Amino acid sequence: MSAQPAPMAVTMGDASGVGPEIVLRRAAEGDLLDGSAVVYGDAAILIRGRDLLDLDVDIRVLASPVGVEPGGLGVVDLKRLTADQHRPGELDGPSGAAARDYVERATVDALDGLVAGIVTMPMNKEATQLSDPGFVGHTEFIASLCGASKVTMMLTSGDLAVTHVSTHCSLREAIERVRPQRVLDVIELTNETLRRFIDVPRIAVCGLNPHAGEHGLFGDEDAEHIAPAIEHARAAGIDATGPHPADTVFYQAVHQKRFDAIVCMYHDQGHGPMKLLAFDTGVNVTLGLPIIRTSVDHGTAFDIAWKGVAFTESLTHALAYARKLAD
Amino acid sequence: MSAQPAPMAVTMGDASGVGPEIVLRRAAEGDLLDGSAVVYGDAAILIRGRDLLDLDVDIRVLASPVGVEPGGLGVVDLKRLTADQHRPGELDGPSGAAARDYVERATVDALDGLVAGIVTMPMNKEATQLSDPGFVGHTEFIASLCGASKVTMMLTSGDLAVTHVSTHCSLREAIERVRPQRVLDVIELTNETLRRFIDVPRIAVCGLNPHAGEHGLFGDEDAEHIAPAIEHARAAGIDATGPHPADTVFYQAVHQKRFDAIVCMYHDQGHGPMKLLAFDTGVNVTLGLPIIRTSVDHGTAFDIAWKGVAFTESLTHALAYARKLAD
Repeated sequence: MSAQPAPMAVTMGDASGVGPEIVLRRAAEGDLLDGSAVVYGDAAILIRGRDLLDLDVDIRVLASPVGVEPGGLGVVDLKRLTADQHRPGELDGPSGAAARDYVERATVDALDGLVAGIVTMPMNKEATQLSDPGFVGHTEFIASLCGASKVTMMLTSGDLAVTHVSTHCSLREAIERVRPQRVLDVIELTNETLRRFIDVPRIAVCGLNPHAGEHGLFGDEDAEHIAPAIEHARAAGIDATGPHPADTVFYQAVHQKRFDAIVCMYHDQGHGPMKLLAFDTGVNVTLGLPIIRTSVDHGTAFDIAWKGVAFTESLTHALAYARKLAD
Repeated sequence: MSAQPAPMAVTMGDASGVGPEIVLRRAAEGDLLDGSAVVYGDAAILIRGRDLLDLDVDIRVLASPVGVEPGGLGVVDLKRLTADQHRPGELDGPSGAAARDYVERATVDALDGLVAGIVTMPMNKEATQLSDPGFVGHTEFIASLCGASKVTMMLTSGDLAVTHVSTHCSLREAIERVRPQRVLDVIELTNETLRRFIDVPRIAVCGLNPHAGEHGLFGDEDAEHIAPAIEHARAAGIDATGPHPADTVFYQAVHQKRFDAIVCMYHDQGHGPMKLLAFDTGVNVTLGLPIIRTSVDHGTAFDIAWKGVAFTESLTHALAYARKLAD
């Protein structure tokens, strides 16, 4: 047998939510069956879910991702949940704990080179915290497993990538995190990632304040903390510009194609425009890890889970981007 | 002669910028000629500009807006600039001072009921500050002339209206301005305005922090300052909801039509998504004045002014919205 490239791991996410449902429905449509992807999760839940939704999917239980064959849905079976522990649409402690374990195993296997990278389906933070009160979030958990301290969240849709100096903290705290070294780190992570497919990525860096501070009239962080980071990046040969007013730069990137990436200073500065552009189709990429990790850009959606109505394209996009990064 | 309704005043804006150019080009296309609008500005500049751009517009010099007749472009001529003082594309002190005077006269005439309201074309703050160093901005100037202390900027495009708890201040200062009374004032102003055409406007109020604070995990302003204002508004019969995560509420309003208005906590929270939706077509409305005032949502654009290339639809939208408010 010739050497196959390692498959991409897809963690099925919280069993109560839309994650495993989306995996099954994509598989029923013929995706995920060519041996280039393998699911990390509970086979018992997937089998029960397949029957619940009356889907035609050949589920193949695997002990490891090595040697996955085309033709069925390969599942690295962690055996955390039994079929009668399936709680569709309910916030559930065992499901939350299991979701954490799928991610842990997939991350370890990615670090060992057994999989090409990981694509994560949604976890429910509150459910996981029932067994692990210190659990902060999906990304923080993976970063900690990898020993990575300098990471950033990138949202992508179409040709545009948006990265963040901070994400899940108060706006007050986000202002404090706008410091030259951190801004420079995020510019560099953005540049390194896009250089995998673009020779010289055009990176727009947002200001923090309205109109990027309007020459100091509306705050001084733009000139004091952001401009020096841009200068430093440019001196290192990166095509970074700004600080740009955050309310016009998205138009310039999307409609005028002037930038390949936008570095945002806080969560909503990037997420507001991006969710409007690509509510269901955005891909979330964690930069700064030693492994490839992408994620669908939506949550567990308990209210619609296991009803056969959740939008499934998100997984296709997240998997495609992970492969693009791996190639 | 039967009593005509008072016309809408259109201040031509800074003579160096795109304002008077857009007025002339719209008039050449047959708009602004039915006697329902009258320009406040300098006839000498408009005549020179018409010849510069080789447009066919019958410019009629008026001393007052009363009795404007259909068929030509009526101009309340303030005689601040002569033709040889026209400085296309240049930041110019006399032009900046003149632009301020057009707005002052139109505002006074609106307060006196001589015009139905005012539609303002862009001024250049730096140009006006050369003669009036204390000039803060177009809106602040009009509010001060009207003796109005409680105003807010509304951006509209299509069916959606977006209002702001603060606009032109640092993000740090914007956080301090998120207080129950101010949030309530803006909800009320939004409701009063939309009630002119919608029985019970559906008003979404944004949180300040990511995910509207995620139950206090990312800041406490959402629960402490915003939620009480919403409760107060609801108790008064207003259909206000929230605090909503600011990154998903625009999608819900635009694509799912769940809201008529969004109350934003700071400039870029509203402007980021709105500029992406409607870069050239947004209308800026000042709420809380005793007069109607709308504005085009772009600046003087000195770089392209008087070249015949500026997008002219903005005036059409701003005028239509002013008329909608007046009817």
